[in-house]
Amino acid sequence: MAEGSEHTAPSFPTSLGTSTSSTISLLGRDLAEELMGRVGFGELVLWMVTQRRPSPGRVRLFEACLVALADHGFTPTAIAARLTYLSAPDSLQGALAAGLLGGGSRFLGVTEDTGRFLAEVLKTREEQPATPAEWDDLALEVVTRERAARRIIPGLGHPVHKEGDPRTPALLRIAAEEELKGPHLHLFEAIGRTHEQVLGRRLVLNGAGVCGAALADLDLPPDLLRGFALLARAGGLLGQLAEERRRPMAMDTYLLVDRNATYTAPEDGDDDGLRD
Amino acid sequence: MAEGSEHTAPSFPTSLGTSTSSTISLLGRDLAEELMGRVGFGELVLWMVTQRRPSPGRVRLFEACLVALADHGFTPTAIAARLTYLSAPDSLQGALAAGLLGGGSRFLGVTEDTGRFLAEVLKTREEQPATPAEWDDLALEVVTRERAARRIIPGLGHPVHKEGDPRTPALLRIAAEEELKGPHLHLFEAIGRTHEQVLGRRLVLNGAGVCGAALADLDLPPDLLRGFALLARAGGLLGQLAEERRRPMAMDTYLLVDRNATYTAPEDGDDDGLRD
Amino acid sequence: MAEGSEHTAPSFPTSLGTSTSSTISLLGRDLAEELMGRVGFGELVLWMVTQRRPSPGRVRLFEACLVALADHGFTPTAIAARLTYLSAPDSLQGALAAGLLGGGSRFLGVTEDTGRFLAEVLKTREEQPATPAEWDDLALEVVTRERAARRIIPGLGHPVHKEGDPRTPALLRIAAEEELKGPHLHLFEAIGRTHEQVLGRRLVLNGAGVCGAALADLDLPPDLLRGFALLARAGGLLGQLAEERRRPMAMDTYLLVDRNATYTAPEDGDDDGLRD
Amino acid sequence: MAEGSEHTAPSFPTSLGTSTSSTISLLGRDLAEELMGRVGFGELVLWMVTQRRPSPGRVRLFEACLVALADHGFTPTAIAARLTYLSAPDSLQGALAAGLLGGGSRFLGVTEDTGRFLAEVLKTREEQPATPAEWDDLALEVVTRERAARRIIPGLGHPVHKEGDPRTPALLRIAAEEELKGPHLHLFEAIGRTHEQVLGRRLVLNGAGVCGAALADLDLPPDLLRGFALLARAGGLLGQLAEERRRPMAMDTYLLVDRNATYTAPEDGDDDGLRD
Repeated sequence: MAEGSEHTAPSFPTSLGTSTSSTISLLGRDLAEELMGRVGFGELVLWMVTQRRPSPGRVRLFEACLVALADHGFTPTAIAARLTYLSAPDSLQGALAAGLLGGGSRFLGVTEDTGRFLAEVLKTREEQPATPAEWDDLALEVVTRERAARRIIPGLGHPVHKEGDPRTPALLRIAAEEELKGPHLHLFEAIGRTHEQVLGRRLVLNGAGVCGAALADLDLPPDLLRGFALLARAGGLLGQLAEERRRPMAMDTYLLVDRNATYTAPEDGDDDGLRD
Repeated sequence: MAEGSEHTAPSFPTSLGTSTSSTISLLGRDLAEELMGRVGFGELVLWMVTQRRPSPGRVRLFEACLVALADHGFTPTAIAARLTYLSAPDSLQGALAAGLLGGGSRFLGVTEDTGRFLAEVLKTREEQPATPAEWDDLALEVVTRERAARRIIPGLGHPVHKEGDPRTPALLRIAAEEELKGPHLHLFEAIGRTHEQVLGRRLVLNGAGVCGAALADLDLPPDLLRGFALLARAGGLLGQLAEERRRPMAMDTYLLVDRNATYTAPEDGDDDGLRD
Repeated sequence: MAEGSEHTAPSFPTSLGTSTSSTISLLGRDLAEELMGRVGFGELVLWMVTQRRPSPGRVRLFEACLVALADHGFTPTAIAARLTYLSAPDSLQGALAAGLLGGGSRFLGVTEDTGRFLAEVLKTREEQPATPAEWDDLALEVVTRERAARRIIPGLGHPVHKEGDPRTPALLRIAAEEELKGPHLHLFEAIGRTHEQVLGRRLVLNGAGVCGAALADLDLPPDLLRGFALLARAGGLLGQLAEERRRPMAMDTYLLVDRNATYTAPEDGDDDGLRD
Repeated sequence: MAEGSEHTAPSFPTSLGTSTSSTISLLGRDLAEELMGRVGFGELVLWMVTQRRPSPGRVRLFEACLVALADHGFTPTAIAARLTYLSAPDSLQGALAAGLLGGGSRFLGVTEDTGRFLAEVLKTREEQPATPAEWDDLALEVVTRERAARRIIPGLGHPVHKEGDPRTPALLRIAAEEELKGPHLHLFEAIGRTHEQVLGRRLVLNGAGVCGAALADLDLPPDLLRGFALLARAGGLLGQLAEERRRPMAMDTYLLVDRNATYTAPEDGDDDGLRD
């Protein structure tokens, strides 16, 4: 950085981590004395994002969502992380990052899509419904509108758990126990009760979608909901990478593909007559 | 996948997530009934990696490490994540991954380097020291050997907290309270007590290094220790990205650099006389 | 991979790389004899993606786009790559990946957005316009429709080069020289000629947008256009990282932010009365 | 960025991209007039990294290396990129980054490892050997020393091409044609001629290793050599992702693994008697 002309120094305000030579603060608290050993990791993350210290009930619901989303076995993202670890075992951060990069629209997206969809419906209403019947009316209106626009409703249906996603009743029960059912969960439950009248068939509430509704009810910003699915998955990927060390499968997967590869010429020929 | 010849079907055993159309299991447990709402997120991660359900004391020490490592303010990784979010706000996973990719040897590496160093010392010993004096003897031997080889000891010293890293006594206290001080912490403390005799000056025990020793005492594999610093940082990065949404600084940082950029010709000329 | 039951072996056809113990093929050619030293890198990439060997003119236009997109100085993505290299110098792949992850909707997206927009307009037409006047008619129709829908037209306007993006005439000239102006460039030029009649002000054709039109005219799939901007940027990032080694600026950037960080309490207080 | 006190403005010198409202420069040249359409993409990258305009022969050798390294079919990195694209098709940059993150020590590392190894040998010599016989002497000395230290020589041997890597003679021929065989290639060739005397068996010169030697002879910094393998691979990955769109295999790979997954309890039990 070379010398330049005089000007006004920049200033970067933050409400997160700051430190001096003798102190480390986080969220305006003394990290060592007030947070370490006293605040759980999930609690800290929820606090950092919302800037309000969460109650124990909120932490329990939040961590239940993280537990629900942490690992689904040999997903494409888990396999991608293991293959990357096989290729570059010196860079654990690369394997973890590769696994998280699959956290996009298709395989990890339903949490955010559902929370965002519900939030968008709710913010168009001046007043929220007060009774289950009123929620059902709103849900019917929404499902009808989406069907007319030929759009699918995020979080409705599951490719495997067609008779019911076991995470759904568990999460709804926990939210009820902690008195944390808010408008997003109310609306999503109402969609679950009413959609059959419009769509003509019964679809399950996807557990990852219920997580999206629950996280939105915890005041987490809809545009960041995918981030919590990614945090959960970061934990799950550590489990996957630890297992890859104990019982490797990435090399087998690679060889299974590579040894069964066969060259196939492009259907319409492969050049413009330019082959020399 | 085209048809091929008969062969033996592959099989991929796992001890993590599995599911059927009506059940979802993780760690051989029913995810919805046995884990969600009953097991915390840190607890689950520790369980997945070690394949043993951790005691509450182990979870407390583990989460204290995660809390200690979650956020250090405007680190290069936090700034990189914010700049990436500025450039590609549609891909939160990319911003998070970019932030984690800085979790390498220099800024996030001390946790793993310390744990691995201590583990390597310990695995060369048939028997572990039994008393503080014996730990001091081992520590003196190790520090003397490393000094002779002109190698630095990971986790000894801190660029900012030269008078003491406040996380260090906090973590040692928590480990003692939970009766979880194991050989890695014993050896690291002994290095802290004895290195001055060999090196001629007093260095602090780096808090991130103490986390490495504590995580190794929790039976986490030394080669994966960086992963827990990354998990902690994933949580911290969500806090950074949430703040970037509330109070952006990435655009200012970019403009501060870009507006003060000046072209400078290479010192030794810039071509081979080939300029046309 | 444990033993399992008999089943049909999978088969993975490909038109790209295959090898035996004595040969390496790519695109059905002998890599060493037919490609290395005979085919340029840009030529190879274009061939791999389109599955047709490109003419020299196509290669020239393609590489002109890559050159146009390779480096724009201290962009957020270049700074993010340098910061990541500072943090994790042992993992060049991580620094490069971090830089590419900013290649999303905002800073690198205009190439893909423009190509895709033009392609979508064109695929709704059974017949393409044949004369400049007919292209102008189509352009006017499209601009009018987008304005009515309050949508902006991708590639129209530039935040810095308000009087003209110098890349635009250069690329149009190269496309003309190589007789490679196709429907995407024709339509984009017509939008450039006619939009002022509808929008009431003159906007420039963004050079990165012209690249998107040119790449689409080279038969590259609209959904992959971002990939070529990323390839170009991968080259540019190597230049940035080489410069970071010769003349570092990432540490200065980090310190400029970190030393000017100040803690600010959240506006609405920071807890729920739960502080212990 | 809030207001602060007066200070000296930072300055960020660069020899790469700069721009004003009416100009765009790269390498001190007018991008549109002097570079686009006149300079190839590989040429530009080589120029940016070395800060010297390369001769046509240097460009040919450089691009031959990129072509040699671009694609090796269904490698772990190609599969990881395809799986990531399957999961998050909205984020092409994520799929590309995931593929590059496997470019670490094991699968893509031989290029850098070889170049770096040769460079380290050469920098310990005040004077370079002048004749093939002198190169052989140096090679024998190096191979003997490495064998004594039980270290393997990077770039010697290939897991598949045991009788000869076809890329090796092709690259050596091109370097000779362009009169660009420098000390790294001379030393590597001499290692190829002499190692059998020391090791007692004949190993092939790995083509990716020869690329490392050739790139080092092009004055590229040894610590950045991996970067050129990554650039080549970025091009190859675009080919892989284009093929994934035409002829998908990622879903089949995922299902092949997931459908053959079976739960296996950890060998030593899975809890501490704490199951509730």
